[in-house]
Amino acid sequence: MSQKLFFTLLAVSFAASGVAHYAGMNATVQFILSCIAIVFVAGFLGKATESVAHYAGERLGGFLNATFGNAAELIIAIILIKDAVNGKPMLFDMVKASITGSIIGNMLLVLGLSLLLGGLKFKTQRFNVTLAGHNASLMLLAVIALFIPAVFAVQLPEAKTNTLSLIVAVILIIAYFLWLLFSMVTHKKELSDEIVEHGEAAWSRGVSIVMLVVATAMVALVSEWLVGTLEEFSHKFGLSELFLGAFVIAIIGNAAEHSAAVMMAMKNKVGAAVEIAIGSSLQIALFVAPLLVIISFFMGNTMNIVFTTYELVAIAVAASIAKSISGDGQTNWYEGVLLLVVYIILGVAFFFV
Amino acid sequence: MSQKLFFTLLAVSFAASGVAHYAGMNATVQFILSCIAIVFVAGFLGKATESVAHYAGERLGGFLNATFGNAAELIIAIILIKDAVNGKPMLFDMVKASITGSIIGNMLLVLGLSLLLGGLKFKTQRFNVTLAGHNASLMLLAVIALFIPAVFAVQLPEAKTNTLSLIVAVILIIAYFLWLLFSMVTHKKELSDEIVEHGEAAWSRGVSIVMLVVATAMVALVSEWLVGTLEEFSHKFGLSELFLGAFVIAIIGNAAEHSAAVMMAMKNKVGAAVEIAIGSSLQIALFVAPLLVIISFFMGNTMNIVFTTYELVAIAVAASIAKSISGDGQTNWYEGVLLLVVYIILGVAFFFV
Amino acid sequence: MSQKLFFTLLAVSFAASGVAHYAGMNATVQFILSCIAIVFVAGFLGKATESVAHYAGERLGGFLNATFGNAAELIIAIILIKDAVNGKPMLFDMVKASITGSIIGNMLLVLGLSLLLGGLKFKTQRFNVTLAGHNASLMLLAVIALFIPAVFAVQLPEAKTNTLSLIVAVILIIAYFLWLLFSMVTHKKELSDEIVEHGEAAWSRGVSIVMLVVATAMVALVSEWLVGTLEEFSHKFGLSELFLGAFVIAIIGNAAEHSAAVMMAMKNKVGAAVEIAIGSSLQIALFVAPLLVIISFFMGNTMNIVFTTYELVAIAVAASIAKSISGDGQTNWYEGVLLLVVYIILGVAFFFV
Repeated sequence: MSQKLFFTLLAVSFAASGVAHYAGMNATVQFILSCIAIVFVAGFLGKATESVAHYAGERLGGFLNATFGNAAELIIAIILIKDAVNGKPMLFDMVKASITGSIIGNMLLVLGLSLLLGGLKFKTQRFNVTLAGHNASLMLLAVIALFIPAVFAVQLPEAKTNTLSLIVAVILIIAYFLWLLFSMVTHKKELSDEIVEHGEAAWSRGVSIVMLVVATAMVALVSEWLVGTLEEFSHKFGLSELFLGAFVIAIIGNAAEHSAAVMMAMKNKVGAAVEIAIGSSLQIALFVAPLLVIISFFMGNTMNIVFTTYELVAIAVAASIAKSISGDGQTNWYEGVLLLVVYIILGVAFFFV
Repeated sequence: MSQKLFFTLLAVSFAASGVAHYAGMNATVQFILSCIAIVFVAGFLGKATESVAHYAGERLGGFLNATFGNAAELIIAIILIKDAVNGKPMLFDMVKASITGSIIGNMLLVLGLSLLLGGLKFKTQRFNVTLAGHNASLMLLAVIALFIPAVFAVQLPEAKTNTLSLIVAVILIIAYFLWLLFSMVTHKKELSDEIVEHGEAAWSRGVSIVMLVVATAMVALVSEWLVGTLEEFSHKFGLSELFLGAFVIAIIGNAAEHSAAVMMAMKNKVGAAVEIAIGSSLQIALFVAPLLVIISFFMGNTMNIVFTTYELVAIAVAASIAKSISGDGQTNWYEGVLLLVVYIILGVAFFFV
Repeated sequence: MSQKLFFTLLAVSFAASGVAHYAGMNATVQFILSCIAIVFVAGFLGKATESVAHYAGERLGGFLNATFGNAAELIIAIILIKDAVNGKPMLFDMVKASITGSIIGNMLLVLGLSLLLGGLKFKTQRFNVTLAGHNASLMLLAVIALFIPAVFAVQLPEAKTNTLSLIVAVILIIAYFLWLLFSMVTHKKELSDEIVEHGEAAWSRGVSIVMLVVATAMVALVSEWLVGTLEEFSHKFGLSELFLGAFVIAIIGNAAEHSAAVMMAMKNKVGAAVEIAIGSSLQIALFVAPLLVIISFFMGNTMNIVFTTYELVAIAVAASIAKSISGDGQTNWYEGVLLLVVYIILGVAFFFV
């Protein structure tokens, strides 16, 4: 597809979806238009990320993409928390379900598709094995930090559970910033991939960054429009709120990571794909989720960090298989299949509950 | 022992055990005769596997052995399911116990003995580390696939649990066939051991294959005769059905894998020993168990895939220690000891329940 | 600090603390004096260990240190068990809490501080990766051996639980001695670090060993004096017995390991630091704890090996993060941070219960 045609379709689909949303059109129309739009804005974000990654190196590019990709999820969650504080406490459960869905969606669906499609093209793909080891340890920290409050909260009164949640949240955010210090400053070199890139960038350095920001904003907007239509659909198809939050919303909210990661993997830059998928999961678990706990506290009604058994099992399962597969710094199509298989099994189980 | 003497003893012990079984002799006589026979038929199977492995390469040989070794278990389980469908539903529990026992027996007892005996002869034994990584990921998939239905089934009505079991079973069988495609076709070379074999085969290629089939059939028959005598013995010695299914039946049913794997390890072909032990476990978990669920559905009474907490703990524990030990592609006698220690602890715990 | 000044302060602080203890002075005075003393005796033990390690090699030195470090804990536990058998059965819980605290304190606090402080000085520290793999498998065995009795004990009568505990204890001690045989005799070379040491020893070989014994005895004595003052303090500050046993007593009881391990890491001998921290944990789990079960049996009132859910979660969490971090034989400051973060989260959770 030529550049010109792509940007025309991007503009048209985005505008149509926006008009449908703000004019309050029929939900089915809104749904279809926003689905079409998300394909193009996600493709745009993929292009922009790739261009930035050209200048920034694979890993910083991947980090930027993960961050911009999670901005949308953060915004949606804050809106839900605002409503939860103002008298709809069950929305806290929806926030946690979407956090769960985001973590497992990135680790299993995004990474799985990337490894499968990348692996069909390239027999074996390689990335920095030291980074893989650190990612695994951080994933484990995330799982531990979510499990411990759940285990101990069973016998604690609500006030203590909230205090425990806040303390754990603060500790996790500190750990996350120290990780950024470690991976971007003190040990930047040890964690970077050795592959030298010779691709061409679509734009200059400055324009690439602007494009990345614009693309992220567009993805966030379209995601929100799409999410707005979901409730009606879930009732039509009889989907539970847990399934809706953990699978439907999460898949759409991660469209940006999807397109970017898959595109990277298909260009044999599997290090960037892993960074986007795992990095995004880690950011959700170690930064976004704790931040939401703290924000809810300042809004006057603390959301605790206690997830349901189903959610904890899903996160633990996703982290362990992703750790096992990414541990050797080598990937192939079958490892993508394994991740997708676990995602499908989880999806079926959540659907039935 | 000369070839001639061996085959004479094989024929005599096999015939004696068969006569005792079909003539309905005293249970003690049947038990002793079938125990003697199993030693020789298992030895025969070991010889045949080794000869086939000579032509087929270590891994394909290991796979063939694992498959032929599991044929016996599959046949016994189908017979039990037929009875279960016809009014003895508690036999479903016996089937699951023997599946559990087969998985942990292969991972802990067969692999443990192989590593211990191989390790006493050779200081450090090595095998393909990429294969080890994939085996570990597949083991994890097996554990996940058995845990998720058990976690979610707690709150599900029976009909939904059965549907969930069937879906998971179909997904696992697809994943298993894709694994065969991956390991035998697209990435065959990456997963094979580099050691060149210079041993001599006992028979020509064609005769070796015939011998493998004949030996497997003999093992299956003698196993069944032996299993038939067990109920009387379990009552005499006060063993529970869980212990009987998970330990006694499983040890006897795995006699073939035992002899073949240990023989390989003692010839420093530890890659083949691992393939037999782990490969057999994986085949039980990812193919035999799901197949039994599907077969039971077509027989008109679905056996769900929900295992008891004890069984799940045993499988998870076995998989995690086997993963930890085989992860580096190097083995030694102490790693065999560790596997056997875990097997003994599980055995004692199951004995007491 | 000059040698002379150090030994003067060591003698004075040790004597003052001893006088305060045996004269039964005010608890606050005793507490402060023993805290000062512990700093110096721990420093003395560090010096002695280093000197012995110079002659014995990093690993044997580490093993000696771990053993001498745990002697204090063993003595304290036996005193508690004696009281428990004589009518205070709740002291069994205190023993188990301090075992838990010792295991997680070594794996998380001692190892975490060592990696953090060593890592701030040296960018990447390395140690024998084969040893790391074996340590991980042993840690897993320890976790398994503590989990299985707890899972099965739920449905067992007390007598059977005690028998199961005794059998598991005997199996673990056998496994631990086989490990010593493996790591010190049959595979000594494979597990040793390749780094050649050129440091100077403080004393001759013989004097070093005497100093190690003397230093360990002094640490044991001061630890006991300090522990004696704790009950009063815990009441003042409202600390639970679980928190007291698992954190306060364990931190003080591990002072020796602390000082020795950190000192080693800061001299870039991270292999010795890991051996002290992980080796000490393993010794507690695989030797000290089972030995206490057997000792309690001979004292006439068996202490079972069933830990609480909180304790099991803490041990499992500590083992899994320590395994993940030490698995690649490389360490850095951020890995120290991760261990400390998990320790702090556990500490907060135990504090709230």
